[in-house]
Amino acid sequence: MTVTAPAGFDAAGVAVGLKSTGKPDVALVVNRGPLKVGAAVFTSNRAKANPIIWSQQAIKDGVVEAIVLNSGGANCFTGSFGFQTAHQTAEKAATILGVSPGDVLVCSTGLIGTGDEVFRAKVLQGVEASAAALSPEGGQDAAHAIMTTDSVAKTSVVAGEGWTIGAMAKGAGMLAPGLATMLVVITTDAVLDSATADAHLRAATRVSFDRLDSDGCMSTNDQVTLMASGASGVTPDAVAFRSALIDVCDDLARQLQGDAEGASHDITIRVEHALTEDDAVEVGRSIARNNLFKAAIFGNDPNWGRVLAAIGTTQAEFDPYDVDVWMNGVRVCTAGGPDRPREDVDLTPRATDLLVDLRVGDASATIRTNDLTHDYVHENSAYSS
Amino acid sequence: MTVTAPAGFDAAGVAVGLKSTGKPDVALVVNRGPLKVGAAVFTSNRAKANPIIWSQQAIKDGVVEAIVLNSGGANCFTGSFGFQTAHQTAEKAATILGVSPGDVLVCSTGLIGTGDEVFRAKVLQGVEASAAALSPEGGQDAAHAIMTTDSVAKTSVVAGEGWTIGAMAKGAGMLAPGLATMLVVITTDAVLDSATADAHLRAATRVSFDRLDSDGCMSTNDQVTLMASGASGVTPDAVAFRSALIDVCDDLARQLQGDAEGASHDITIRVEHALTEDDAVEVGRSIARNNLFKAAIFGNDPNWGRVLAAIGTTQAEFDPYDVDVWMNGVRVCTAGGPDRPREDVDLTPRATDLLVDLRVGDASATIRTNDLTHDYVHENSAYSS
Repeated sequence: MTVTAPAGFDAAGVAVGLKSTGKPDVALVVNRGPLKVGAAVFTSNRAKANPIIWSQQAIKDGVVEAIVLNSGGANCFTGSFGFQTAHQTAEKAATILGVSPGDVLVCSTGLIGTGDEVFRAKVLQGVEASAAALSPEGGQDAAHAIMTTDSVAKTSVVAGEGWTIGAMAKGAGMLAPGLATMLVVITTDAVLDSATADAHLRAATRVSFDRLDSDGCMSTNDQVTLMASGASGVTPDAVAFRSALIDVCDDLARQLQGDAEGASHDITIRVEHALTEDDAVEVGRSIARNNLFKAAIFGNDPNWGRVLAAIGTTQAEFDPYDVDVWMNGVRVCTAGGPDRPREDVDLTPRATDLLVDLRVGDASATIRTNDLTHDYVHENSAYSS
Repeated sequence: MTVTAPAGFDAAGVAVGLKSTGKPDVALVVNRGPLKVGAAVFTSNRAKANPIIWSQQAIKDGVVEAIVLNSGGANCFTGSFGFQTAHQTAEKAATILGVSPGDVLVCSTGLIGTGDEVFRAKVLQGVEASAAALSPEGGQDAAHAIMTTDSVAKTSVVAGEGWTIGAMAKGAGMLAPGLATMLVVITTDAVLDSATADAHLRAATRVSFDRLDSDGCMSTNDQVTLMASGASGVTPDAVAFRSALIDVCDDLARQLQGDAEGASHDITIRVEHALTEDDAVEVGRSIARNNLFKAAIFGNDPNWGRVLAAIGTTQAEFDPYDVDVWMNGVRVCTAGGPDRPREDVDLTPRATDLLVDLRVGDASATIRTNDLTHDYVHENSAYSS
């Protein structure tokens, strides 16, 4: 049910030929209320796609009636024509739904530079077709329509005390969210005001999508949107709601990691006993972005020297010669020297645990990444062809 | 002739079994004077190998009598035993040469974590054997003894007005120098004091090795050392000497790039019309470290969207929607939109030129990198086996 699991939401996913495969490529999610609360976080990449530029304006009043999403073209670096396309997309949906265009968000994903007249015509056609197909059971269709190189649709639902959160996500590459991630739509029937929705969303994305760094490449089109319909009539306990929202975001982040292009290992990097959480994140991210470490994991090689070489490039507080490194439960390095033999580490499972103990404080963080594989290179050298 | 091309230097390269292949693995370069001037720059990685820690102390007085280099083991994260090994290496060479141990530098390269009793015994044996083999014609042997995954020895010689500069380098992976690069030894018979040598060396490495970023991974063992013997009796013109030194460093940087592990393209990223040189370097480096761009080049795909997505993550001064991107002479993007069709770009040659015109100022910089290939992944997943 995904985004239509909570009460008050209709959705649809239709195929209009943006994808050469003929698979669904335009999704529409509509909030039927009574509340029309929205919050969103966007890529921190300065190179922003036209739908991002549109949506950043549209979200300012905290009101969202609907969101249109398309795959098969990013509408990024497509000039003023591309911005007009995003604008017309919102207007088209608003006219059909009888709402204000400024309350319709737009998301696009696909190849950068794609957004010509043909693209525009298909997207507008998709708005019409998806509006005609709207249904309280349309969540699964919508989740399929936003897929690009994803091998599976990513969805998540969590039920609270009288309220529900539902969500869908797409993303398989260019996965290094800056304040958001790929395209994510989260819905809830809880009663929230827009400031509370915004605070919950930022708190949840900070410790979930922001801690996913599959390939160090930040997208131009990332957007995470939360819509609240209030249809349950229940104002949730703030702590319980935030916790449930984090669960949904973390679940989607793991699904994104598990479906990352070409990956053969899902690597969970746990940094413990850092002085600050920021230090822990910086150290974890330096490992997640180290190609030599990622290639070693692909080769089932517990090359802990590459971990230390990576974290040595950070400004975090620690002594490189007093760090412990564990791989899949085996301490391979202690106090700046070798510990248990490499042969003791079994890296054949897809799930890979790296633990780095900085031994200076009480803060910790977990960063999720993937290995660097032949298939990653292959898929990303052939993407636009 | 490499490091023995200038007058006043002897060198040797010998095999002592540090490499499983039986190839030469210990090099010694000795300055016979009359001057014993030395300058060095080191990796800015906080995770530093033991020979780096030793050499950073030894260089402080600006006097260098000799340098010992070994391949087949990095002596990094090998604890206090490893530091003692570096110390004993310098003492052994000093005793044989009749100089102070504090004037002998040590460099190591190979697998991090390698540096046990067997390693120490072989290195010390290598010092003895190479000292016995010292010769004014030993430069080529030394250049071969420092190779690891290098497919060719890297050397460079430039002649000035009455003086000569010679050099050798090794490096094929973990190539993202922070203030230095892999192992480089540069010799000259010019008359220089140590402050002048240091200034020339820093100026030259800043625009050569520091602009090479093959895989974004900074080594723990990088060191570039300049030794001046004064044997020519000629005090060089400062501008001419610095220019020649830059030529030598740039020549070696290109050789390192051309021999980078698994690479199939040598990519020259030229950033023009930046507001500052720092901005140009930041923008160039963001592209050089973008795996999606590098994989696209491997696939001969002129995917300029990935260039814009990469530079959008920087803090440099420019408008992402007013940038021109050229690939091998074809302008594929102008003012935030597509220009000439992708099909016009021929990316089949190994030499690849990317030009990014930021259109805001007069500063520029060139960053050299490589593509991301199947072979890179293969070589780096199997390195330690």
